[in-house]
Amino acid sequence: MRRPDELRAAVEEHLRSLELSPALGGLEDAVRYALDGGGKRIRPVLCLATTEAAGGRVEAALDAATAIELIHSFSLVHDDLPALDDDDERRGRPTVHVRFGEAEAILAGDALMAEAFRLANGYAAQELRLEILQATSGMIGGQYLDLNGSNGDRLELNRLKTGRLFEAAVGCGLWAARIPGAVQRPWREFSSEYGVLYQVVDDLLDEDGLVRERGLEATRELAAETEARARARLEEVEADTSVLAELVDELTARRP
Amino acid sequence: MRRPDELRAAVEEHLRSLELSPALGGLEDAVRYALDGGGKRIRPVLCLATTEAAGGRVEAALDAATAIELIHSFSLVHDDLPALDDDDERRGRPTVHVRFGEAEAILAGDALMAEAFRLANGYAAQELRLEILQATSGMIGGQYLDLNGSNGDRLELNRLKTGRLFEAAVGCGLWAARIPGAVQRPWREFSSEYGVLYQVVDDLLDEDGLVRERGLEATRELAAETEARARARLEEVEADTSVLAELVDELTARRP
Repeated sequence: MRRPDELRAAVEEHLRSLELSPALGGLEDAVRYALDGGGKRIRPVLCLATTEAAGGRVEAALDAATAIELIHSFSLVHDDLPALDDDDERRGRPTVHVRFGEAEAILAGDALMAEAFRLANGYAAQELRLEILQATSGMIGGQYLDLNGSNGDRLELNRLKTGRLFEAAVGCGLWAARIPGAVQRPWREFSSEYGVLYQVVDDLLDEDGLVRERGLEATRELAAETEARARARLEEVEADTSVLAELVDELTARRP
Repeated sequence: MRRPDELRAAVEEHLRSLELSPALGGLEDAVRYALDGGGKRIRPVLCLATTEAAGGRVEAALDAATAIELIHSFSLVHDDLPALDDDDERRGRPTVHVRFGEAEAILAGDALMAEAFRLANGYAAQELRLEILQATSGMIGGQYLDLNGSNGDRLELNRLKTGRLFEAAVGCGLWAARIPGAVQRPWREFSSEYGVLYQVVDDLLDEDGLVRERGLEATRELAAETEARARARLEEVEADTSVLAELVDELTARRP
């Protein structure tokens, strides 16, 4: 089984060789810029690791994993816009709208979403395609909640805004490995905990979100509890989940 | 066979009863507002008329027709944004960003695209889904060309920005009626001419685009030539295309 770094390299390679729709023309530059940001590719790696743990072939899940990364990238490009979070930098580089202008950033985000669904469309399994579609709507709904105030329910906001894509990553990995829906439950419970853990660790690093809402100590406790639950869910899965456990290690190693 | 107004009523009814993803939450208001704008529903009506002319059932094409209208609506919401066309009014009402704010308009456009693909995803025919996906990328590429100057090739710009969705409307109608790709050519040639005609008439009405580029007389001639070609292509189709001919009548009746 491939380790996280090998899976990450496979994702990078697939992204580099990704052929975009020719009709996008010169917009491709902004789309590539958004994708080349040097992120950790956590979602696609999670997808591939799930497929392999479930007995499937990494190659069968590469397009789905890439589609999820494209959806994530689309969400960042639009979220960074002046009308939303108004962020000028992301991972040490100017954001897409700073580099290419606001109009092109809006179109580049649109194109990323359309290209993601084009990749997903190659799968005959309707459930796999639906996984990505529902996660996208959920993520957009989460952005809306974030914009309009989450009424104090930050965990619900996180569940939509960031959690849905993590769940789709695991879900797509399972469908790509042809795991029937009826036996997916423990994997999916793991993905929910993993998504929560990701956001809690992120809030600890940035000292915002949950930290601002509940305080540092309570958030640290939440991280420890969520990590324990994620590991417990993994143990319920009847498969070699050692690489998925490594992904949990990677998340918790980030925690300050 | 149902006449254009009956098909239009079927589209309106289907749009009214359309269930959006619950995860969108309060964003549904802006999405519905964008869809309720009282447009002429030309694209979905073209789709349904094609299905029926090709011997298919209108009901089999309703979701595809609606998906195309949602893609069209998404493109208007984003195109109207301050960073793009900066339009405050559309069909006598405030545009989505004026009514709901810019951030919500960006998210509403995103949601419209995602919901369109969710509707398309229900079709087992990959070609039908691909039709909508490719039209969307083409349309976004057209917006990009429009933004960056079309280098004088306005017909190419129109072919992408508006033409692709008309072609997808006819294409989806054909797939929904289970017409094999090998015999779709005359229908598709009709759809290209219809798309050009739509834009030429639109430019004549607004006195911009082609009128500004080529002058009024040359544009009027182009309209007459395109109309003649559209009708000639329809006659090559071996089916009762009388309702499609009525849709050409409707377009040309708008011409000043």
